[in-house]
Order: sequence, then structure tokens, then C-alpha cells
Amino acid sequence: MIVTIIGLGLIGGSLAISLKEKGLANHIIGLDRNLENLLKAHELGLIDEGTNDLAAAVRRADLVVVAVPMDSMLTVLPQVLDGVERQVVIDVGSTKSMLLAAVAGHPQRGRFVAVHPMAGTEYSGPEAAVPELFTDKTLVICDAEQSDADAVNLVQNLFEQLPMTIEYLDAAAHDLHTAYVSHISHITSFALALTVLEKEKEEQQIFALASGGFASTVRLAKSSPDMWVPIFRQNRVNVLDVLDEHIKQLQHLRHLIATEDYPAVYQRIEQANLIRKILK
Amino acid sequence: MIVTIIGLGLIGGSLAISLKEKGLANHIIGLDRNLENLLKAHELGLIDEGTNDLAAAVRRADLVVVAVPMDSMLTVLPQVLDGVERQVVIDVGSTKSMLLAAVAGHPQRGRFVAVHPMAGTEYSGPEAAVPELFTDKTLVICDAEQSDADAVNLVQNLFEQLPMTIEYLDAAAHDLHTAYVSHISHITSFALALTVLEKEKEEQQIFALASGGFASTVRLAKSSPDMWVPIFRQNRVNVLDVLDEHIKQLQHLRHLIATEDYPAVYQRIEQANLIRKILK
Repeated sequence: MIVTIIGLGLIGGSLAISLKEKGLANHIIGLDRNLENLLKAHELGLIDEGTNDLAAAVRRADLVVVAVPMDSMLTVLPQVLDGVERQVVIDVGSTKSMLLAAVAGHPQRGRFVAVHPMAGTEYSGPEAAVPELFTDKTLVICDAEQSDADAVNLVQNLFEQLPMTIEYLDAAAHDLHTAYVSHISHITSFALALTVLEKEKEEQQIFALASGGFASTVRLAKSSPDMWVPIFRQNRVNVLDVLDEHIKQLQHLRHLIATEDYPAVYQRIEQANLIRKILK
Repeated sequence: MIVTIIGLGLIGGSLAISLKEKGLANHIIGLDRNLENLLKAHELGLIDEGTNDLAAAVRRADLVVVAVPMDSMLTVLPQVLDGVERQVVIDVGSTKSMLLAAVAGHPQRGRFVAVHPMAGTEYSGPEAAVPELFTDKTLVICDAEQSDADAVNLVQNLFEQLPMTIEYLDAAAHDLHTAYVSHISHITSFALALTVLEKEKEEQQIFALASGGFASTVRLAKSSPDMWVPIFRQNRVNVLDVLDEHIKQLQHLRHLIATEDYPAVYQRIEQANLIRKILK
């Protein structure tokens, strides 16, 4: 199978590695509007061939993966579909409702399968690509009934071999759930980093004292604004809703500590501990 | 050296393992007001001997480690010091100002060295004890000038062999910095867990979709209220101060997303990215 990957960052690059390692792609064509990324991806062996000829790269492919930030996705995906006949096209984007609305009327809508691999790190660019990023993670396929059955089958079979677990969700449910389990974690981390950076001027002390707990809570704050601003924009309503609830929870804990109602703080922490049921 | 460890949880238990493995203690006496924990610690081989005779356990020891939650610390530490002559005593607690005030006038104050190993996990109890918990982490020694020089030397030499890096801070600075690099991360995590648990009723979806980012931001929410409520109480002023700043940062990000000022969101994320300088 010939696979064309547009966008050779963390996700596109890691997918290239996995598809090659599992023998699922025998030739990978790469595109990236950033020439430096394209050259780097080639040098790292992520792709067999680099090009800037989108039309030819789509025409020659069996599968086209669009792995660009969500703002570019809204323009690149329709362009790709314009060149599609038999090919299957997937995005790997973090929000779905706005994207699916943007291609709803496209004559080749059936060739497109909207997927979201629930995997990532705080790093970006081709150097961030790693093997095993997707192993044993979940792939969400959204609004599958809008895609041709053969296209959905191809995508499901492919990702099951990485191996990933497939979940089917409609776009609205996807965007709500990801606001909870992904987008809000990033906002919290950004805010926590800003809190520490703005108030704590003695960086050397942070560096010396920061232990594993701090590092794990704040590591997402290293994430790229190029990726995250478009996500917050496209999932704005859900993000604001979850953020309001999170701020309310923080204010409530603050109130309980301020008024020294420690039995209530204890109860809230016991309640929070129930996350053990969900997180291994 | 005979070491008596009072409180056989994550920290006390892990220290027992490290002291034994490095050959720094040849006999470890353990105490825990929870008999089940004491038996478990003995069964796991963390201690050589269990007892409930505090006075004898202090008398026979060269070093006494008090590793109980911060509320119990305020009563247990003075009791231990009452029985001390030549022995060295350390706490391993997360807050210092209130504790040091509590023993300020004690005739044996000089035998006590206040330390805080900047290491931990979200788990508690003797089963949570692990080797290497302290390896290459930082040990803070507080208000060292209040302790006898030989006691400080013994503590420094001991922990340098784990190996740990030693930092000296006064208690007030310690409590401020730990509010930033440890206490606030826990409050954020508790609030995030509560947000998800209260709003997101479809637990199966969280479970399926939650990726590494969510897990790392929320894992601290598994932490024990028995440990954390006393910390928030004893470091209340600093915790409230940092929490106010954190809520302000979240509200600002919320405002920027609500008003769709995405260039400003981008700038804030770029600013947050500077945490890269501090976190590896």
C-alpha cells in the first residue's frame, strides 16, 4: 500500500514509523509546508519520498493521512478530497464537529474517515516521532456512517494491526469527551506553568525542588500553541463548559481551605480519589 | 547504625529499603499506630523488628525518623525529643514552619534536623514503598543552624549516599517553594478529577479515551487525604496565595477563549512553554 502523509509532526511521523514497521505501507510519500520538517523527516527515514505536489501525492496513494494542525485541516482536507477517486482519506485531528461540517457536502465525503488516535506527547515536529506511540491505545472513528463501508473497513483493519482498540462515536460526543480527558488537562497545565513562572522568580529553586508530581502535572505545558490554539477554537463551547466546572471546583476547594473546613476538604479529596476506578 | 522509623508508609518504608540496601542501617525498628501497617511492613521485610514501645525504640536508636502525616507530626516529634539524649532525629514532612515553631523551645531541639525529601508517588502505605524513590532527588534541610553541627553532618552524609542532592533553606522559603512545586499540583489534580467525575457520567468513555496526558495530569488525585489535609492546613497561607494566582491564570485563559482572542491565547501558551527551561 502506498501511503501519503501530509504533515510530518509527532502524529504523522509516528504513524509513518508504525506503518513501515508493521509492513502495512511499502512506500510512504511525505508532504509538509515547512521544508525543514520535510527534509528532517526524510533524513530520519520517516518517509521514502518528499514532495510538494499535493495533487500527484494524492493520486498515487492508496491511503492519504492528513496530520496537520486543526486550522490547516479545514482547508487541506477539502483540497485532498477534491483530488480523490478510489483513495481513502483520514484525518488524525483532535476535534471533529467543525471539520465534519466543513466537508459535509463534498462529493467525495464517503472516501473520508474521521479518526482520532488517543495518543500523543508534549513534543512536536518530526524529531518527536516515536515507534509504539499508538500501541494499545484507542482510535476513535467518528460518524462512520457518513463514510463508505470499504473505507471504514480499511481504516479499522489497518489500525487494529498497530494494534489499537477501535471506538465509534459521533462527532459531538467525541468533542465533549475529549474536552474532558484531553483539552482541559492541557489548559490546566498551561495555567499551572504560568502560575509558577510568574510568581516564582527563583527558578533555580523550582528546578532543585520540583519532584515527579510537579513534572507530571506540568509537562503538558510544553505543548505547541500551533497545535492547541486551533483545538481550543474549534472545540470552544465544550472547552469553556469544562473549564467553568474546573474553576468552580478549584474555587470550592479554595473556599474550604480559606474557611478551614478541613473535614470538607477531606471529603472532597476522598471523592477525587474515586478517579482510581478509572485510571489504572 | 540502628534506625527507628515511626510511620511505615510510602516515605518511611522506602527509606527503610534504601538504608538497608546501601548498608547504612544494620537494624531497623519500626512503629506504626496502624497495627495492620506494622505487620505488613514486617512481612515485606521493610523492618527487622516491630514495636509499640516508643520510648524504648527511641532509646535504642542512633537515628530516629518520624514519617507520619503532618498533623500527627506535631505531637509525635516533641514526644520523641523528650526521650532523646545523644540520638539524631529527623522528620520527613512536607511543611516546616508550624512544626519548627512547635519544637522551637524544646531542650533537645539541637538533636533534631528538619528534612524534606522531594520525592513521592500518589500511593500510600507500606505496600507503596519502593527502592530508588530517593535516588538523585533533592533533600531539603531546613533551618540547619538550629540543629547541632554533628546531627546535620550525620544527616547530610547519610542522604548523600542514597544518593541525594542536599539543599539548605529556611522554613519559610521551603513552605513557599513547596506550595508552588508540590502542593498546588495536588490541588489542581484533585479539582480536575472532581471536574471529570462530576460532569462526565459516562465513565466507560473516559476510560477508553483517556490518554497519557490525562493520566499524568490527574494521577496525583489518587493521593491520600490523610497526608494532604494536614499539609494544606499547615501551609494554608502559601497554598491560598498560589491557588489564587492559579485561578486567576485559568480565568484569564477562559476570558481569552470566550472572547476569541486567539492571538493572546497563543502568546500565553508560548509563555507557558518557557517551563521547558526548568523541566527537562
